[in-house]
This record gives sequence, structure tokens and C-alpha cells, in this order.
Amino acid sequence: MSNQIEVIKAGVDYYPEHWDRSIWESDIELMLKSGVKVVRLAEFAWSRLEPTEGKYDFEWLDDIISRLTKAKLEIILGTPTSCPPVWMYRKYEEVRHTEKSGLKTATGIRGHRCWESPVFLKFSQKIISQMAKRYATNSNIIAWQLDNELESNSCNCDNCTSAFREHLKKKFNGDIKKLNLAYGLDVWSGEYSNFDEIITPIGAQYKPGWLNPSYMLEHARWASESTAKFVDFQIATIRKEIPKAFITTNSCFTAHTPDFHKIFDRLNVAAYDNYPSLYKAEDGYPNADRGFILDWVRGLKDDNFWLLEQVGGSFGCWAPISPAPKPSMMDGYAWQAVGHGANLIMFFRWRTATKGAEMFCHGLLEHHGIPGRRFNEFAKFCTELNALEIPTDTVIKSDVALLYSSEQDFAFRVQEMSAGFTYRKQVELLHSAFRGIGVNVDVINESADIGKYKVVLLPTHFVSDDLVATKLEKFVSDGGTVVITNRSGVKDKHGACLMHKLPGDFAKICCVTVAEYDAIGEDTVPLIVGDKKYTASTWNDILELCGAKAYAIYDGEYYKGQVAASKNFFGKGTAYYLGTVGDMAFYRDLAIEISSDTKITHDITIPKGLDVITRNKGKTKYTFIFNNSYTECEYKRMTFKPFESKVIIL
Amino acid sequence: MSNQIEVIKAGVDYYPEHWDRSIWESDIELMLKSGVKVVRLAEFAWSRLEPTEGKYDFEWLDDIISRLTKAKLEIILGTPTSCPPVWMYRKYEEVRHTEKSGLKTATGIRGHRCWESPVFLKFSQKIISQMAKRYATNSNIIAWQLDNELESNSCNCDNCTSAFREHLKKKFNGDIKKLNLAYGLDVWSGEYSNFDEIITPIGAQYKPGWLNPSYMLEHARWASESTAKFVDFQIATIRKEIPKAFITTNSCFTAHTPDFHKIFDRLNVAAYDNYPSLYKAEDGYPNADRGFILDWVRGLKDDNFWLLEQVGGSFGCWAPISPAPKPSMMDGYAWQAVGHGANLIMFFRWRTATKGAEMFCHGLLEHHGIPGRRFNEFAKFCTELNALEIPTDTVIKSDVALLYSSEQDFAFRVQEMSAGFTYRKQVELLHSAFRGIGVNVDVINESADIGKYKVVLLPTHFVSDDLVATKLEKFVSDGGTVVITNRSGVKDKHGACLMHKLPGDFAKICCVTVAEYDAIGEDTVPLIVGDKKYTASTWNDILELCGAKAYAIYDGEYYKGQVAASKNFFGKGTAYYLGTVGDMAFYRDLAIEISSDTKITHDITIPKGLDVITRNKGKTKYTFIFNNSYTECEYKRMTFKPFESKVIIL
Amino acid sequence: MSNQIEVIKAGVDYYPEHWDRSIWESDIELMLKSGVKVVRLAEFAWSRLEPTEGKYDFEWLDDIISRLTKAKLEIILGTPTSCPPVWMYRKYEEVRHTEKSGLKTATGIRGHRCWESPVFLKFSQKIISQMAKRYATNSNIIAWQLDNELESNSCNCDNCTSAFREHLKKKFNGDIKKLNLAYGLDVWSGEYSNFDEIITPIGAQYKPGWLNPSYMLEHARWASESTAKFVDFQIATIRKEIPKAFITTNSCFTAHTPDFHKIFDRLNVAAYDNYPSLYKAEDGYPNADRGFILDWVRGLKDDNFWLLEQVGGSFGCWAPISPAPKPSMMDGYAWQAVGHGANLIMFFRWRTATKGAEMFCHGLLEHHGIPGRRFNEFAKFCTELNALEIPTDTVIKSDVALLYSSEQDFAFRVQEMSAGFTYRKQVELLHSAFRGIGVNVDVINESADIGKYKVVLLPTHFVSDDLVATKLEKFVSDGGTVVITNRSGVKDKHGACLMHKLPGDFAKICCVTVAEYDAIGEDTVPLIVGDKKYTASTWNDILELCGAKAYAIYDGEYYKGQVAASKNFFGKGTAYYLGTVGDMAFYRDLAIEISSDTKITHDITIPKGLDVITRNKGKTKYTFIFNNSYTECEYKRMTFKPFESKVIIL
Repeated sequence: MSNQIEVIKAGVDYYPEHWDRSIWESDIELMLKSGVKVVRLAEFAWSRLEPTEGKYDFEWLDDIISRLTKAKLEIILGTPTSCPPVWMYRKYEEVRHTEKSGLKTATGIRGHRCWESPVFLKFSQKIISQMAKRYATNSNIIAWQLDNELESNSCNCDNCTSAFREHLKKKFNGDIKKLNLAYGLDVWSGEYSNFDEIITPIGAQYKPGWLNPSYMLEHARWASESTAKFVDFQIATIRKEIPKAFITTNSCFTAHTPDFHKIFDRLNVAAYDNYPSLYKAEDGYPNADRGFILDWVRGLKDDNFWLLEQVGGSFGCWAPISPAPKPSMMDGYAWQAVGHGANLIMFFRWRTATKGAEMFCHGLLEHHGIPGRRFNEFAKFCTELNALEIPTDTVIKSDVALLYSSEQDFAFRVQEMSAGFTYRKQVELLHSAFRGIGVNVDVINESADIGKYKVVLLPTHFVSDDLVATKLEKFVSDGGTVVITNRSGVKDKHGACLMHKLPGDFAKICCVTVAEYDAIGEDTVPLIVGDKKYTASTWNDILELCGAKAYAIYDGEYYKGQVAASKNFFGKGTAYYLGTVGDMAFYRDLAIEISSDTKITHDITIPKGLDVITRNKGKTKYTFIFNNSYTECEYKRMTFKPFESKVIIL
Repeated sequence: MSNQIEVIKAGVDYYPEHWDRSIWESDIELMLKSGVKVVRLAEFAWSRLEPTEGKYDFEWLDDIISRLTKAKLEIILGTPTSCPPVWMYRKYEEVRHTEKSGLKTATGIRGHRCWESPVFLKFSQKIISQMAKRYATNSNIIAWQLDNELESNSCNCDNCTSAFREHLKKKFNGDIKKLNLAYGLDVWSGEYSNFDEIITPIGAQYKPGWLNPSYMLEHARWASESTAKFVDFQIATIRKEIPKAFITTNSCFTAHTPDFHKIFDRLNVAAYDNYPSLYKAEDGYPNADRGFILDWVRGLKDDNFWLLEQVGGSFGCWAPISPAPKPSMMDGYAWQAVGHGANLIMFFRWRTATKGAEMFCHGLLEHHGIPGRRFNEFAKFCTELNALEIPTDTVIKSDVALLYSSEQDFAFRVQEMSAGFTYRKQVELLHSAFRGIGVNVDVINESADIGKYKVVLLPTHFVSDDLVATKLEKFVSDGGTVVITNRSGVKDKHGACLMHKLPGDFAKICCVTVAEYDAIGEDTVPLIVGDKKYTASTWNDILELCGAKAYAIYDGEYYKGQVAASKNFFGKGTAYYLGTVGDMAFYRDLAIEISSDTKITHDITIPKGLDVITRNKGKTKYTFIFNNSYTECEYKRMTFKPFESKVIIL
Repeated sequence: MSNQIEVIKAGVDYYPEHWDRSIWESDIELMLKSGVKVVRLAEFAWSRLEPTEGKYDFEWLDDIISRLTKAKLEIILGTPTSCPPVWMYRKYEEVRHTEKSGLKTATGIRGHRCWESPVFLKFSQKIISQMAKRYATNSNIIAWQLDNELESNSCNCDNCTSAFREHLKKKFNGDIKKLNLAYGLDVWSGEYSNFDEIITPIGAQYKPGWLNPSYMLEHARWASESTAKFVDFQIATIRKEIPKAFITTNSCFTAHTPDFHKIFDRLNVAAYDNYPSLYKAEDGYPNADRGFILDWVRGLKDDNFWLLEQVGGSFGCWAPISPAPKPSMMDGYAWQAVGHGANLIMFFRWRTATKGAEMFCHGLLEHHGIPGRRFNEFAKFCTELNALEIPTDTVIKSDVALLYSSEQDFAFRVQEMSAGFTYRKQVELLHSAFRGIGVNVDVINESADIGKYKVVLLPTHFVSDDLVATKLEKFVSDGGTVVITNRSGVKDKHGACLMHKLPGDFAKICCVTVAEYDAIGEDTVPLIVGDKKYTASTWNDILELCGAKAYAIYDGEYYKGQVAASKNFFGKGTAYYLGTVGDMAFYRDLAIEISSDTKITHDITIPKGLDVITRNKGKTKYTFIFNNSYTECEYKRMTFKPFESKVIIL
């Protein structure tokens, strides 16, 4: 599906509506010269396309599309729904997003519309239909991007309240007593008499941890589904005019990320906006697990993917301006993305805006428009990429799968387990350990077929899931290796704690139970595996073995000498249970042990910070090596300067 | 009065309404087995008792009461007024609390009702009456708990605004000019033309220090009295049905603590919810002055007291989950409480909730319900306690009284004197010094008879009080020793600064005046007493002696060589004035000097962190020793492991 | 103009309305004794002057004015508009200020009125007219102070919204398309259909950086002009009754400072409220560039000035109480102010308030009213000042001008360039460097005649200005020296980025362009000038010379060896461009080089922290030397204790 294009290409995000047409022609010339193949247009241009209610103006868009077409530059068209025009906000109050305080969001920035508003949907349908109809037959438009960086619905207006009530009514078949029981609303007399008493979690004064976690979890699910529904609506609107339209959206990772796995199920290709940090990491190893994000995007559709935005300069606007990308950084991160499966790399943005809030979110060209260092690095990347003609239908082969679950992400947002405990961090520890020894990791979700893997990593599977437990049991029986970590099997699907010994559904394959736990947060306790010493932190389960053997032992606190992690042979396979959070060395050594035991090729000579990954097409191997650090390093007799990358084709 | 029970007992807080009845019977069996004598029920159960307006359901409560009665477990019944059901909030908007912003508090957590609302009071009266009538003759119900952890009224609704206006009208006999004058409202043209112009301190953007401190002080008094009025209302409602009902409430210490001395004047026994910190203190001496809180509770009615909640596991919900209680901590803190006068120790809570926001505020039993380490410690405590059969009518004899004044607490909340200056801290410094050498301290308030003490400690008596000054004058004349600290005698009863030399009313017995002061905050200045060196911080009065002799001298800053503290012989007694805030060594040495001079038995061999206290019944002495530290220590040839406690009966 | 008085005098701020009249007479006696010459009255007294709507009471003010007149104490009268009485707020809702959240500001502190409200203006006009009429002929009233510490209008009410719309309509001649184009509102579809769609920047959830910077810049301009308009209104009201009234206002420097240059254009003398920090600076050099503020005030009208408030004791109220002023501090800072051009020093305040929120903003007299250390220092200052009889028409001669632009201040408030980058800081670095070697600096604005200076300093002239560039070109051509720093020439007058190579309009005289920049924030890079080493931070331009020679070179980062600062000979003059932010040593050495090259008398023997400045009258030189540090130092064989000051008349 992601093979809408045949060889990997580079592109740019372009906002012709911000510039005088006198600039367009020279811009297109420079694009051609630099090696750009694709241009994204129109994502925020609603007020230019519908300047007043019902009056449309496509002339400028026709013009630029025609010019790009003539230049044989392919086009991705954005639907402009992220930013309704001001006239709509002023005339139709309901279009505006409602804050947690219950007050309407003021206008003036982007993304503050409510997509549960019928008025907003009516206008959205009209503008999208118009665009789709107009450009239906333009084969130069290779894809549509829906909205921009969609997040879970965080609105609290009347329409959203109603939608949330309907969601719950459906979930509980209209039986409010079932909801009360499932969520334990008798606690603090929070029981509802009927669904109409339910509200969204408003009240700016509330921390998430103060409200009922079952209700908050379900609200997070609803908020994600509301976003998915909006995606469905846009797809239907476009496909009505262009039945075979190739459609995606530019996802990003925030505190309000919806379940993108479900969202991209509906779309033709997974796509992401890739902004590695430009700040110097304290230890010199920045964006240590940036590879995780890329593997996560590849996992969304278990396929190669697109980047619709790739860092093109220093950031500004939402915060002070960041440092400039160091030499090699821009193309280094681009090559890394290609390595992990990117088939299209759109740089954000062609020109630096001279107006508006993002005028210091720097693009490839400075305000003055004359090519400089960053532009030249970008053009060098395009040229090299074009020269390689890498096919898009390559495959990345992985023996290890990591289960990333939006359910757990939602659940941990609502309840912080201990100081410093985040779902993302737990996930990245396991991912980094295997990637650091050159082992590929597929990031999957609950629905994946795990039979093809040798190893499955299951970090903190908090909200339990019979299907996952059953799958894993079969997987291990059949010879697979699984790593399960603490805070797994805690909750039922409604977010209530299960009344079994932890890790509950996973205790069977692990042959271990949790006697007690100690949420030590940022404190530490020494940890021992054989004769090696590590450090435990964050959360300590104290384990009782019921068949497993001890893998790691605490060497401090009142549970000194007790079991911190276990290893169990079950059927033909092996199940590790990690009751604590170790340091990186602990995870690395575990990854080495598992890779050795399961005969997964791995490479312990890879230096810290170096990302090595291979895409395969038939017998051809495209290997991408990127030094994601501020330190020069050596690997296989090659020297890598900071942020240097190399492509090796064998 | 606190002898509703005859020997000291342990109990548990139980929420049967959260659990299937199939669990009730085994729970009761386990309670009996563990040594539990008392069970608290129903405090948050309004929605279970009145599921819809006017429809009551007591069947489940009848059932559990009957089962507990059969098991000879005594019962404390809570009134459920902390959490009105959702139907009430939705139908009667006025029931909801109003924030400082002026916006209504959203529902979904606990305690957000307004008890100045007539509608709320009407519903409260009905439910309490129903309960009282129904269980009036059940002699197994030994006490009633009103609401839960009452705080001062912080609501800003129309009803509260009216009540505050009425309070002021009454205070100033309806004469608005008197109020304007007393509060100095001509400053910044804040004068009112009539009482109807007065509002509560709304405006989320305001720090307390920006508003008129006299008005803020009186609002704090009103807010406390509003809470007391609500207590009166509940008492009257219960007593109408059960004239001799034994009633209390579970107090706690927060930033909005009302004047609990006045509140417990109305009640049969003082009661408290005791949650020592489970986080490891940096210096290894956690909850350094936890004893203060316990002495404060004992002082509320000058009698032994109850703990209605005692820590039973790690905390969660409002914050990330805390570390687990270390071994010996749970029973250590319980024994310490017994030592300071607790006659009943109710552990919070029997089972860990599986649902609702507090699912990680751990109870004695884990989610799985199988007894573990914490439960076993608790059961051991119950067994030992039951075996000792300690009578409840013991006496703790104190020669030292510390005056803790809610007035000062209110006044300092409104105005921060210098960085790091809090009333509580000033109070604890003096309390800790005497407790650290084994001297008992009674915590009294302004109304206490001080004649029976040898020493009275008066920390920062900011809002002056003629009665206190007069009492102290007689006390010192008659041979008593008093310690008065800086920021005393500053203000009149309306919170206006008095136009006398400080310490004003207290200057006479101290024979010292404050020439000048320097609010140094977190800075420090060396301090000398004789040939010993200490450190002064927070606030430095520069003293002029007018009869007193110098006790401590500054050894730095522009007032090097000037007097920091004085000692004066007045009549047959002695008055110390401390113009600065010393370090702990300074207070300890002062406590030793005073105890020696006044012939109070003290023990300088008590190691840091060890709490030693004795309850007396006739000639029998029950001595409780608790190592409140992470360090092993020795005392009287006994070794105390971290958090270990011992009971010695002589 | 500032010579309303002939010799430099001291005065006090007095609030007779807070005190019983029995105190007035003794206060006046003490004032006379201490050397006070001027008394300020009435600034917050509206509720005392108009206790109920339309009923005025001037009797008390008549009385105190008559007593002061009899005592030959001169009077400054304040208009009381900062604090309307409560009755006005209650009866006329529109008088209240509206927060960023859109909610009305609660009453109870000061300054929360909206001066765009016609109702407020009507009442203001009445009270001011009454006062002016009543005291028109009293020659003892030497000046009027308008309101108190005026800031830019931050209100968001309907009246302010309308006024902001009118401002924009006028600016763009009613053509909304021009506005849309100038501000780039097509970005994020923010285009307006008409001016009535525009709102003020409400929405508490927004950081300034998230909204359109052109719009925010213009709002800052409007907010400043709204304040100026209010000043015009008050001037007109007074002058209608007293055509020759001498009028000023007490400015202060906050995050919302309006363009005071424009405001004082309308007034007779510049005036300021001078509160140096009383907290001990970490390096022992507090208020390092306090001299900047004083030079800024002198620059507001290019004339000597008044201080209407001068620190008289430790602060409190808005924050915990500060440390007391050390000995010599109060008069030290007063003498420093005299040195920089103050002709009148009014100390805040005579008595410490006993009531109201500022009861711990200490005055000269303590609450008890008996003269103490601070009062005595103050009286010593008055006596010495009176003895010197320094004429007010002295001149401070400066060869160096520093351009401080409110435009830049507004623009940087909206957009933070990099972590730690503030306009004020950039300004102070240059000012401090020259002042540290005893070179006088005039602080000018864009409209000043720069022909008379040898050196012009132009820190970060972000929003470009053709006039300034043209002036500078002529200035340098004619032999002047200019120092221009990074982030100059970035924007057009609407706040849009210009599409030229930086520093744009200033590139011509500097013969340098910016190839690239790196916003390193709090990071640092070594910097080299000749054989000297310094440290660059905050923001690094990488320069391309096109005629200039390199002045400073980076010695690190990927631009090691590239040019950080340049020096260019243009016409008969010299232009420095500083692409980075150096350390103090860098600026000091630059100041020495420039002073040497331009033959400006300077003195490199002045120790750190010592402020030396001379006022000239004919051939008489009044030199003021102040040790603004916690360290004793030597200068010209004189010893200066911490905060000691000396006056030398030659």
C-alpha cells in the first residue's frame, strides 16, 4: 500500500499562499535543481479557499498545481480542517473547542475546532468535497493528507458531552447500573442515575489522578475513537468524489496521542512528522531511542511508511528558538528514517515563514531565500537518495516484536505508578536494549500475529487482555521467548484492579507471583544477576517463585536476597518476568542472553549511539548506519563523526 | 469522655458496599482472627443509601451491621455528607462548591459540596435522621463519625457570600464604618458602603498576600466557624434521635485546617487520621516531629483520643504511589500513637479498593485479598495490643505546655513573614526540643488553665491577645517559665499592626524590646550563647534590653554583637524572648537549661529519632519507645532497629 | 522643566487619611526636624474623597494641606484614579478590568479598573476636576502625580476590544485586507473578514509565543497608547482648571511597561519609583546595573528627573518580607540616584502602614512611630542634601548614547529568541561596560538627535526602522562609532521578518552579513579577540565579511574559526557588529577599545561595583561615588565600605 511511489523520494512542505506569485516560479526551479520530487500543499489554507461563507476561491491552488504538474513535481494535498476561518468561529460559537475549565478556547492559534460539531462537519464536508471534486482527475496528486497532527479529542462542549454519553450508553447497552458497577462509582457516591448525568472530565483544578480511573480510561478511548470517526468522515467525503484516493494523515507523538494503529487501519499508508530534538543531550547521546518512534510508525500498518514532515531547521514559536541542527544532523536523521522504513521524506518546510507564529520554525531556506548550509545539506541528501533509486517495497526482517498498546498508554496517563514511571520509558528500555546490539524490533499491537517472531516483549501490560495472555501462552508453548514486565495483568478492561495475584493472566507462563511491591520511584536498590551488579529503580515487585527460577535478586532494602526477576521454561519456550526497572546495562545483558539463546544474529560491537538497520529487496541489502551522538566512534573499521551516516548496499 | 471503650483497641475502616456480599462473611472471620474489635462503616455511602431523591435503601447496611453485631464487632457509623450523590449535583446546582475563580467546581471527586446551601442541608438532615432513627437502639454502634476530614469552608457561592456578610455584620454590629476603620480599608480605597458590597476572596489570580490581611484573617475565622456550624447541625440532627449519641469526626491537618479545638469542644472525643510520610527523609529521620501532631490531637480536648484512620499501606491517587511501609513502620507508628494517647486505632483500610480513584491507596489486604506482610504486621499489633489490655483512662503528665493557636495559623497563612517561615515550623522547633530530651509537652490553646505547668512555650503569638498576656504575667510572677518567640504581639484582633514596640503586650515580662528586625529568610547568621555557637536564620529581631539579660548574641551581619535572645527574671519566674530562629542544637540546649532550672525530669541520653513517652494509670506506667528513624540506635542498653518499637510496663 | 524646584530636595510619601489627626501635627514636626521639604498626598484616597457616588468630602485634605502649607512643606497631589471606590465596582460592572481568561477581575487590590470604560472616565473626570478646581490657587502644591505606576492596558473587556479594533481600523485605513496581508493571517487561516472579528489576546491557556506576533506587537503598541491616552485625559482635566499645572506620573519598570518616552513627552518632568533589590546578590554585586534604570529615566525627557518613591525599608505584601536595608544602603541608593540626575527624592513612605496589604512594605518610621536606624539614615541624608544646596539645573555630559527602544521591548516580550535572551539584558550588558569604566551613557530613543555623541550603542534593534538606519549611516559617515548587536534588522514595522540578509538595513555600514545563526541559549562557546579569550552564549550569528574585518572569532562548535563580531570603517567612522553575546569581560574590553579610539575619558581603575558619576553646573562639578557592593573597595586612595557613598564637589 505504501508503494504509491516506486523508489524512495524526498519532498518539501510548501505554502504558496504565503508568498507572492513572483516567487513561485523560482521556487519550483530551485526545487527541481535540488532533487525534490514531491510537494505538499494546502493543509492550513481554508481561509484562502473559502474567504467568506460559501464563497470559494481555488484559482491560486489551480495555478500552483498546474505549475507543479508542469514541472513534474508530484503533489500531496492537505485537507484544511485543522484551521477553520475566523468568520466561522465568530458566526458559529459551537465550532470552538471547549477547555477543561469549561470556557471556550479563544481563537488565534491552530487546531481549536470541535469535530463533534455538526456545523463544523457541514463546512468541512463542503470544502473537502469541493477540493476532491476539483482535483479528482489530476493524476499528479499522489495522495491526500487529512487535517494536521491529529490528537485525541480534548473538547468539553455540549456536542462532545453528548457524544461521550452515547459512547457509554452503547458500551453498556443503555444500562447505567452496569456502568456504575464496572467503574465502582459507589466509591465516593459517584453513581449516575442515568447517562445524561455524565459529563466530560472538566474542571481545570483536577489532576487526572483525582478522578475515577475507569471513567478516565474510557474517556481516553472515546477521545481516540472520536478522532478516528473524524478520519472516517474525511475519508468518506474524499472517496465519494475519488473512490480510489490514496489517503493518509501526518501523525505525531504527544501527550494526547490517539490509537494511531486503529486510525491508520483506515488509511493507505502510515505517516509521521519527525522532529528529533536539536538540544544537546547531557550524555551526548540525543534522541537515544528515536529509532523506537520510527519502528512504531512502521508497525502501525506493518509496512514501510511516509514522513510528511522532517526537521528542516531550528524550532521556535512554542518555545524559544532551539539550537541550529549541527552539520550532518539533518541528513543523518533523514537517512536513519529511511533505514527504518521511510519511503517518502517530506522536509518541513521549503521556506521559513516571514509571518505568523511559526516564523522561527526554520525551513530549508532562510527568510532571505538564498540557499545556505542547511539547504545544501538537504539538496545533497536529495541527490544521493535519487541516485540510489532504492525501491520502496523492501522488507525489514525482525525476530523480535515489542507490543506497544494504546490501551496501556491511556491507562498510565490517568494514573502515575511512581515518580518517573511512564509507559513510553518502559517501552523504550526494552526496545533500546535489542536495537543496541543490532537486533531489529517490530512494534506491534494486540491484534498482531506473533507466531512469526522468536521473541515478544510485553512491557507493563497494565490493563489485562485475555487474548494477549492466550496468544502468549501458545507462543511460549510453541517455543517462543517472552519478556513481561511489572505492572502487567493489574486491571480488567474497565480499568478496575483484578483480584488475583499479579501478574494475573501472565502468572501461568511465568510461574511466578508478586508477593508485595515497593514503588521506590527515583530511589535505587542494588540488583544482582549472577555475578553482575546493576541498579533497580522506579518499581520493585518482590517475587515468589512457583516453578520459575530466579533471574535477578535484590541486594538491598528489606527485601535483600529476594527475587526481582524470574525465568521460566514453559512448554518449548521461555518466559521472563521483570519485577523491577533496571539500568540500561541490565537490559542490554538480558537482550544479549535472549538473542544468544534464541539464535538471533546480534552484534555486541556496535558502539553506543550508532543505529544500524537493513532493508532487504530480494538479495539486495540496503544497510543504513547513523551515529546518533556527539562523539566520534568506530564500527567495522569505519569511522563515524558525530551524526554522520553511511549507506551500504550489498 | 474518650472512655467510650475501656481498653485500647484496634479497628479497621471497611466499605462493604464496594464488595459482593459473598466476601463479607470471610472478611468478618478474618477480622475476628486478626484481633480487630471495631469497624467503621458508611462514610461515603450516600448514593447507596439514597440512590434516587427521597428513595432510601438501608437493607445492605442493616445486613452488614447485623453480621458485625453477631460477630461482636463494634461499629462506628459515618454520616455520608462528604459526598452527595450525583443526582443532587445535577438537579440542584447550588449544592456544588464554587472555586476561587468564581466557577462551579466540577463533580467527580469527593468533598465538593457547599454546606451553606439550604438544599444541601435539607438533604443532609433527611439522610442523617434516617440513619440515626434506624440505628438509635443498636448498642453495638459505639460512635458516630461526622462527614470526613472536614476543612474550613472554601466555597465562594452566593450562599457563602451571604453567610460571610452576616458574620461580618454581626461582628461589627451592623456598622460598616467600624469594619472599614478596623481593617484600614481606606488603604487603596477599599471601603465598603454597606455589607452587601462584601464578597469572599475570589479571583484565582490573587495570592493571599495581595488582599487586605484583616479581611483575609476574618474570612479564615468565618470559614472555620462555618465548618463548626455544620458540625453543630449534624450533632443536633443525630441527638434529636439519639440524645446520648457519642459523636466525633476524623480531623486531619492541611492548609485549610479549621480551629479543631472549637470543633471538638462540641464532640465527645477528639479523633484524627494519622498518615506519617512513607518517603525516606533525606537525613534518615522521617516525620521528625510526628509526635507533635499526636500531642496536638491529645490537646484538642485535653484527653486521650481516637485515630479513625491509621496508615495501612502505600499511598496513591492524589500523587504517584508512595514506597511501601518498611517492616515495623506500620505497627511502630501505631504504638507511637498509643503512647501519645490514642485509645482506638482504626487502620485505613481493610481491603485495598479495586475501583475508584483511591485504588492505589493501599489497605491492609492487597487487591487479591490474601494476607501478606502488611496484614501480618497489623494482626501482630492487634494481638499484642489485645493482650496488654491497656486501660483507656491513663494520664500523660506534662510540666510543659505549648500554646498552639489557630488564630496564628490563620494569620500566617495570609502573610508569609519571610522565606521559609511557617507557623507550624516555629511550633515544632520548640516541641521537638523538649520531646527530644524526653520531656512531655501538652499542646494547649488560649483558653487553657496554665497554672498547672512549670513551663509555657509561646511560639510567634502574632495576633496579640490581652488575656494570654495577662495570664502569662501571672504565671511568670508566680514562678513559671515562659519562652516567647519573635513575631509575637504584632497585631490586634482585627489583624492590624499595633503601634507599640514589639513584643508589645509581652514586653513587660520579657523586659526587652525589638529595636529593628531583619527578615533574612533562608540566609543565616552565626549565633552565640556563652561559648557555644549556633546558627540563626529566617528572622532576626535586634533586641534592646530594658532589664533582661542577654541570652544569645549575633555573631555576624551589621548587628554583630547585638542581642538575639534574652532571659528575664520577673516576679518568681523567668521569661525568655527568642528574637531569632535557631538551629535544633540551639533549641535543645535551651530545653536542657530550662528543664534543669525548673527541675523537670529529662534524659539527654535519648538518641535522635527515638520517641519515648509514658501513660500512667495509678502506679502503673506504660512506656512506649519508638525508633522513628532509618538508623539503628541504643537506649538504656536496648537496641532499636529502624522503626522498632517496645512497650514497657512497670 | 524639571526645575520646578531650584535645589535638590528630599521628601516623603504620606497617607494622612490612614492616621488619626492627633498624629498629623507630630508627624509634621518630625518632618521639619528631619529635613523633609516635600510631601506627596492623596494618590489612593478616592474612597475618602468621594465616599458615596457624587458626595465629596475634601475637609480632611483641606486640613492636611493647610497644615503642611503652614509648615512650609511643599505638596505633590496625586489623582486617585488607580483605586476607584468599591461602590463604583459594584454598581458599574464595566469599570472592572477583564482578565486574559475573559473573566472579570475580582476587586480588593489596587489598579484593577478599566480606563477605556466611559463610566470610569466620567467619574475620574469629576473627581480630578473637583480636586484641581479646589486647589488651583494653592501655590504650595508644586506638582500633580497622575494615577500610580501606570502599566500598559491589559484589560480585555468589550470597551477595550472596541478600542483595539478602532486602533487597527485607523492604522489600516479601514482596509482589513491590508491588515491580513501585513500580519500574514493566511497562516493558519487567521484572516479576518472585517475589523469586528478582532479580539484582544484572551485565553489564559496561551503563551504569547503561540499567537500571531504581528498582532501581539500591535496589541502591545495599542496597550501602551491606551495608557498614554488616559494620561492625556488626566492632563486635559487638570489643565482645564489649572492651565499651568506642573504634572508628572510615577513610572516603574515591569513586564508591562508602556512606552514611557511618549508618555513623558506630555508631562513636565520624568519621574520614577526606585526600589533596588534588598536581597544579597550571589556575587556580592547587587543591582549591578541599577544605574541603567536611572539613566533610562533621565533619558525619558533628556533632563534631570524626580523619584516619587525611593526605598525606605524592607518590602512585604506581594512576597515574603525582604531583608532589611543594610546600613548605608538607603542613603547610598539615594545618593546614586542624585548622581544620575534625580532632583527630588521622595521616600516611600513616612510611616509603615498598620493596616492593609502593604503593612509590611516598611516605611521610614516603624509601626510604633519612634525614629530608629532607618529613619536616622534618612534624616542624615536629608540634612546633608539640604546642606549641599545642589542646584537642579546641572548637566550630565555624555559622549555615549544607548538607544533603548520600547518597540524592541514589546517585540521581544512576544517572542523569546533563545533561553535567557531578554531585551533588557542585552541593553544592560552594553550600558554596564561603559559605566564600569566611568563613561557616562545617555539612554535615548529612536527620535533623539545623535549628532552630539561620539558613540551610539544599538542593542538588538529587532524591528527595523529606516530612520534609525539612515541616521546611523550619516552618524558613522561623519566620524561616529556605532555598536550594533545580533537580532537587529530582522523585522518590518508590522513585525514580519524581512527577506534580506541580516542585519538588513544595518549591513551597509557594518559591511557584514549573517550566513547562519545558532540559538545556543544557556550553552556556551569559547570566543577569541586577538589573544584574549572570552565566552559566547545565548545567540551566535555566523558572519560573512563583505568589507569589514573580523573583531571576534568563535573557538568552538561547528563554526570554530568563523567570525563572531566585526569592525568596519565606514566614511570617517567605525561600525561594530556583535553577532554573539559575550561575557562582561568581553564588553568591558570593547568599551575600553572604543573609548580609547574615540578619545573618551575613561578610568579603568574603578573597582567592580563602584558607581562614579558627575553632575556639572558651570565650572562646578558634583561627583557622586557609591559602592554598590557587599565588599569594601579602594578608589583614588579612598576606602569605600559596602554601600558607602561620597559626594565630592570641585
